[in-house]
Amino acid sequence: MTSTSFSYGQLVQFAQSVFEKIGCSSEHAALASRALVSADLRGIDSHGVARLSGYVRLWEVGRVNAQPQIRIIHETPSTAVVDGDRGLGLIVATEAMQIAIEKAKLVGTGWVSVQNSNHFGIAAFHAMQAMEHDMIGWAMTNASPLVAPTFSKDRLLGTNPICVAAPAGEEPPFVADLATTTAANGKLEILQRKNQDTPTGWVQDTDGNPANDPNILKQGGALLPLGGDREHGSHKGYALGSIVDLFSALLSGANYAPWVPPFPAYVPMPTEQPGKGIGHFLGAMRVDAFRPVEEYKMHMDHWIRGFRRATPIDPSQPVIIPGDPERAAEAERMVDGISLLTPVLEDLRQLSVRLGIVPLDA
Amino acid sequence: MTSTSFSYGQLVQFAQSVFEKIGCSSEHAALASRALVSADLRGIDSHGVARLSGYVRLWEVGRVNAQPQIRIIHETPSTAVVDGDRGLGLIVATEAMQIAIEKAKLVGTGWVSVQNSNHFGIAAFHAMQAMEHDMIGWAMTNASPLVAPTFSKDRLLGTNPICVAAPAGEEPPFVADLATTTAANGKLEILQRKNQDTPTGWVQDTDGNPANDPNILKQGGALLPLGGDREHGSHKGYALGSIVDLFSALLSGANYAPWVPPFPAYVPMPTEQPGKGIGHFLGAMRVDAFRPVEEYKMHMDHWIRGFRRATPIDPSQPVIIPGDPERAAEAERMVDGISLLTPVLEDLRQLSVRLGIVPLDA
Repeated sequence: MTSTSFSYGQLVQFAQSVFEKIGCSSEHAALASRALVSADLRGIDSHGVARLSGYVRLWEVGRVNAQPQIRIIHETPSTAVVDGDRGLGLIVATEAMQIAIEKAKLVGTGWVSVQNSNHFGIAAFHAMQAMEHDMIGWAMTNASPLVAPTFSKDRLLGTNPICVAAPAGEEPPFVADLATTTAANGKLEILQRKNQDTPTGWVQDTDGNPANDPNILKQGGALLPLGGDREHGSHKGYALGSIVDLFSALLSGANYAPWVPPFPAYVPMPTEQPGKGIGHFLGAMRVDAFRPVEEYKMHMDHWIRGFRRATPIDPSQPVIIPGDPERAAEAERMVDGISLLTPVLEDLRQLSVRLGIVPLDA
Repeated sequence: MTSTSFSYGQLVQFAQSVFEKIGCSSEHAALASRALVSADLRGIDSHGVARLSGYVRLWEVGRVNAQPQIRIIHETPSTAVVDGDRGLGLIVATEAMQIAIEKAKLVGTGWVSVQNSNHFGIAAFHAMQAMEHDMIGWAMTNASPLVAPTFSKDRLLGTNPICVAAPAGEEPPFVADLATTTAANGKLEILQRKNQDTPTGWVQDTDGNPANDPNILKQGGALLPLGGDREHGSHKGYALGSIVDLFSALLSGANYAPWVPPFPAYVPMPTEQPGKGIGHFLGAMRVDAFRPVEEYKMHMDHWIRGFRRATPIDPSQPVIIPGDPERAAEAERMVDGISLLTPVLEDLRQLSVRLGIVPLDA
């Protein structure tokens, strides 16, 4: 499949023009485009501009409000619940994280649960904001139900990611951003394009049998929780995905479990809606609320170096620190640009025609 | 293997007499014995009275201080670092959780990182304390290095569990307590006794090859992070275990990674000690710091019932909620008593002789 390269700046500018065209303020459009394209930059191609037309379709069917009044509906010194007013999650989560950071400045930590939002892009973008303030960041979100809990045929959970971003000193930071499934949906898409089977333990068919077809979700199959099956700990992946649902939705009043609104605009909304929109959870912890920043950073560097020099099983594959692959992608793509596959580029061309804006590759 | 049954009260009383004999105050001994025997009650036999003589041996070699001055060494309104003064983790973590709960009462959430402690028993005992106050509890701890990060032969992490305990309304609570490995060490012990192989993905040998021998840890092998191998997401289990290390030790000043002191007293202490003792992390989040407790509980009940009625793959095995198996064990064992295997009972007999106290089965 051929591809065409664009600079980070080109993609941000294009996304910004799209968000402005659907009615976002220029401030919000700038925010949303940076959050979105951070995925392309970090090598998470499934969550970047490939989804841009999907966000627009949600706006077209009235599920996304381009001019949200994002507001705190309940708070204490260390907590808040934010109503995202059906805004783009890219924007809502960024603003919620700022609230968490401000609370952490005052009382040591800040924790914000969000209702009435939409897909927020990659969790790492939001969690990493805390690091600029010498804080550790947390980000979680629930998502459309695609994952079967252990022992079930039914899709009751999203891929519900957890991200923790922790600064170091001289070493680059620790950034763990993980779907609570064996494999994220983006990994299936790669195998679909290559026409290859999935490893066992990634998906099951509609009857709950182990399957290897990367297209099985379209036939009613399900992603499996991290662990894959009970013998390999899938009850733990199920528990972790559930924890994300509790913090993102049960604490905020968002929809949860199979009632989370789907991302594709053509999928009908669930008839039952126990809450509002989808939910996120953002946290910020001031390092110096625990110990002096310099001591912490010295030990983080020591921790990271200890893992880097661990004996590899295969000398050509050293141990990596969570965040390394994304950082490597970013370094490379800032120089060489970001390649878009032909179908993604074609989708963006159609989007620019539909919205009457300058195409990306004009 | 034969076994003998004892009531919960008998085990608590015996453990209390042991802790008092080594010099704990009666208040601390009561606390420690309840924390310890909660493991037997909940069916986590590997973490209960089977470990009692291990705690005593740590005291005998001077690694446990029976009369610790547990104190806060740094704090903000929502955070604290606690120095456990080499006390039993069973006691130190319980007191740290009380500090987290008091902070949550004042500012919505409380987060306590602990240094200079020892093994704290089961995480669930500590996290569950928060629920009595309509709070969600968190508990994590680092532990002796037995787990190899993805791509390595070296044992750099403990089984580093994460527990989240969240109250519901009419339904019993959600209590997820999970080692961040494919299988906890206790599962290996069961297979050792039965002389059975482990499933692939649980352990590797000293060269990093997949292995099925439950005794492989004694030959320098390692437990594997949740996921088992890279293709099945072991980098996620490795990241989760690392997150536990960061919160338990990098935030507190405890030892971390391969430098965490071993539980068996006969294993020499690491020559390098970047911190003090082992580390824990306890958190308490007031539900009403986010939304009215009644709304939250109504939705938690709805969430739980949604999962209970999910279509099972095998009709004889319905979907379970995290905490169900432990609650079932507790209900059964409160009535029928707690069975101890002959080697455990023999170990406790020898302990009573060594300490000059009344034996459990007198």
